[in-house]
Amino acid sequence: MGACHADGMSELTTALRGQLPDDAVLTDPDILGTYAHDMASFCPAGTPAAVVLPRTVEEVQHTLRTADELRVPVVPQGARTGLSGAANATDGCVLLSLVRMNRILEINPVDRIAVVEPGVVNATLSRAVNEHGLFYPPDPSSWEECTIGGNIGTASGGLCCVKYGVTAEYVLGLDVVLADGRLLSTGRRTAKGVAGYDLTRLIVGSEGSLGVVVRATLALKAEPPRQLALAAEFPSADAACDAVCRIMAAGHTPSLLELMDSTTLRAVNEMTRMGLPETTEALLLAAFDTPDPAPRLRAVGELCEAAGASAVVPAEDFAESELLLQARRAALTALDRVKGASMIDDVCVPRSRLADMLDGVARIAAEHSLTIGVCVHAGDGNTHPTVCFDAADEEEAHRARVSFDEIMALGLSLGGTITGEHGVGVLKRRRLAEELGPVGLELQRGIKSVFDPHGILNPGKVL
Amino acid sequence: MGACHADGMSELTTALRGQLPDDAVLTDPDILGTYAHDMASFCPAGTPAAVVLPRTVEEVQHTLRTADELRVPVVPQGARTGLSGAANATDGCVLLSLVRMNRILEINPVDRIAVVEPGVVNATLSRAVNEHGLFYPPDPSSWEECTIGGNIGTASGGLCCVKYGVTAEYVLGLDVVLADGRLLSTGRRTAKGVAGYDLTRLIVGSEGSLGVVVRATLALKAEPPRQLALAAEFPSADAACDAVCRIMAAGHTPSLLELMDSTTLRAVNEMTRMGLPETTEALLLAAFDTPDPAPRLRAVGELCEAAGASAVVPAEDFAESELLLQARRAALTALDRVKGASMIDDVCVPRSRLADMLDGVARIAAEHSLTIGVCVHAGDGNTHPTVCFDAADEEEAHRARVSFDEIMALGLSLGGTITGEHGVGVLKRRRLAEELGPVGLELQRGIKSVFDPHGILNPGKVL
Repeated sequence: MGACHADGMSELTTALRGQLPDDAVLTDPDILGTYAHDMASFCPAGTPAAVVLPRTVEEVQHTLRTADELRVPVVPQGARTGLSGAANATDGCVLLSLVRMNRILEINPVDRIAVVEPGVVNATLSRAVNEHGLFYPPDPSSWEECTIGGNIGTASGGLCCVKYGVTAEYVLGLDVVLADGRLLSTGRRTAKGVAGYDLTRLIVGSEGSLGVVVRATLALKAEPPRQLALAAEFPSADAACDAVCRIMAAGHTPSLLELMDSTTLRAVNEMTRMGLPETTEALLLAAFDTPDPAPRLRAVGELCEAAGASAVVPAEDFAESELLLQARRAALTALDRVKGASMIDDVCVPRSRLADMLDGVARIAAEHSLTIGVCVHAGDGNTHPTVCFDAADEEEAHRARVSFDEIMALGLSLGGTITGEHGVGVLKRRRLAEELGPVGLELQRGIKSVFDPHGILNPGKVL
Repeated sequence: MGACHADGMSELTTALRGQLPDDAVLTDPDILGTYAHDMASFCPAGTPAAVVLPRTVEEVQHTLRTADELRVPVVPQGARTGLSGAANATDGCVLLSLVRMNRILEINPVDRIAVVEPGVVNATLSRAVNEHGLFYPPDPSSWEECTIGGNIGTASGGLCCVKYGVTAEYVLGLDVVLADGRLLSTGRRTAKGVAGYDLTRLIVGSEGSLGVVVRATLALKAEPPRQLALAAEFPSADAACDAVCRIMAAGHTPSLLELMDSTTLRAVNEMTRMGLPETTEALLLAAFDTPDPAPRLRAVGELCEAAGASAVVPAEDFAESELLLQARRAALTALDRVKGASMIDDVCVPRSRLADMLDGVARIAAEHSLTIGVCVHAGDGNTHPTVCFDAADEEEAHRARVSFDEIMALGLSLGGTITGEHGVGVLKRRRLAEELGPVGLELQRGIKSVFDPHGILNPGKVL
């Protein structure tokens, strides 16, 4: 199915243009190239046959019907901020970009739902619901660019998850165009519902391999008070992980609980001149968005001190709180600059194993003589070891790739998962088989066949 | 597949006993009869060939392998407190009761998880985790009897859902014995994870039709403060529904928000002599489990008054709060006594349509000259219209059945679902097709075939 001949291509574009406006089908090779991949490193991208930019459900249906008939692969795309290559082109494919379907169709404060098209940018939705006193929690780092459709495809998370969970928990119902062009409606507008198997949740995180989401009904929360943060400095990553365990075991539910290791802190300092303490081996940020966060922050500060924190700095006000969080927000960009390129892993472990995970990553970094900075959504046990490397140095790039894989194996050995929130894409396919085991993999393949018998939807991704 | 000949039966029990202890296979017809059905009305139960009561995963595997080879249907059961007939016997089936697999294997306060066997009773788990300062929210009415396996099978809810969601949101990972006896492990022990399609969520709510859950990893929350309630009396159901909408639109997140109509109030009074106000047409109960609930209760009380409440009674202390909630807990038993039998529906609508739903149910009751009391998990829009009837009066029982069905149709017409938390079972199968539509139904059947190619698992349920 992968390759596509010149004739096939023209047959494809002719068929597509039959029911799509001229500006919805792009075939200029230079333009196609700019759509060919997402933000993942080490993920090869093929040469697409066309980019289709539909504005309506019917246009998506026509595109899929056409591709299915001609057995042409279709790769659905949002803003291509993904980190696993799930949106990368395969040779001869149609890149189906949903970015023009970007309307917010409804915001309902009584039912606490929003109905949106897939191309709505996360930040646009977040701000729109805020105006109604509502809150759409999922906040991936790329929230100013990434689309809700992309978030659903990868089941993405963010800083909020320790309290508010991931995208999956906010998707109530979906309209999905199937591989053969038929329209499937899943789920509901109601707060609860158990009618039949949960196809909604099956689609979430399926990276466009089961169908193309064209409309989503999302659950919203009431907008909480602004969060207030504290920072705690630790003489070792172990001590910081111990603090995380104490905080969670004591029954706290912070709105944010983030850990940065010394490599990350140095990189952030280098880039921002924030003057973070250079001798600190780990920094923990905790925040609460309750009406009266001060007593909770005090209690968390005391737990940090009990775990060996060398300093605890509670924010005096929201402005100071924001300043503390900026260090965390700058982390990935800063690590990217260390050696020019970086590769961000996404291994989630039970939070009781966080210290073992960080020890193991440090060992892997030393063994391969690599710089690996680790940011952690500590409340979730979701680590983002970020391997810094010089892309021009082939040998170093190879070591980076190997260490990336060893980090996944380490996570699995600690009872974790190879991906907490970034998805499988091309990058983690091999390790997925290991995590799922043969029985799970066989069932997943069976489900794929039910939804997409000709295998046209994002082939070579996930499974 | 349904029926089973005398020879088949003895071949079956011989094969079962080959690898099961004597006391794990029951065939005495009198005993089998006591296992034949759950608590749903109007759901026929067949005659089982055997009851199997395994104590280990291997015993479940042997049972399923045997049944699959002999093409004998298997009906998994928990405490049989279900309300949709999902646990009812089909002719010649093996009733696979998981009640003896009732160990709590792990409670981990740092990872906030519990690992349990399916036969653990909900209340047993709830109390066990409380001792660690933890909280397992799902609280179906039958929580003192129902099992976690049954809760997972039906994706059950409870009073807590307005704030804490349903069972599905607390299931992180499952061990599942497939129809052919193979063991599938799904999901994770971690707070997050997006590795492959979400098979965990697919199993939850599948009523034993995709596999038999033999172990579950459950997410826990930190134990919240005790909840404090208020009661508000309204001159009409409409006014009470208006209050619900005002409360939710104002951004409150109560830990409980329950509505009872006048029929229910009268029945509760009759049974308990609680002295609830007889002239009240609807009673709303709201509670908060935040550290300082008083200001929130005051605000909610004011919203109730603005919506026309004739009286607002905040509890002075926790004991008084419990007393208010007892009225709600007594509701279903009380309605059951009105005419000797009752049939509880479970239609969930967007909460903005609650008033229309209650109006419609009152109209249906009048049209059929029936008593229908309505309890509502109002924060979820999840109504439980309970049709009271005299089971000895065939004509009245028929009208009860018809009205039950009309209530589902009404819910669908209001953008709702036929089941918020009780499941489909046998009772709602016909209406399920309507809710899912032909495309959804076809995909659900396809998934069923992937998991259970010979169709031995709980045939005739759900789909």
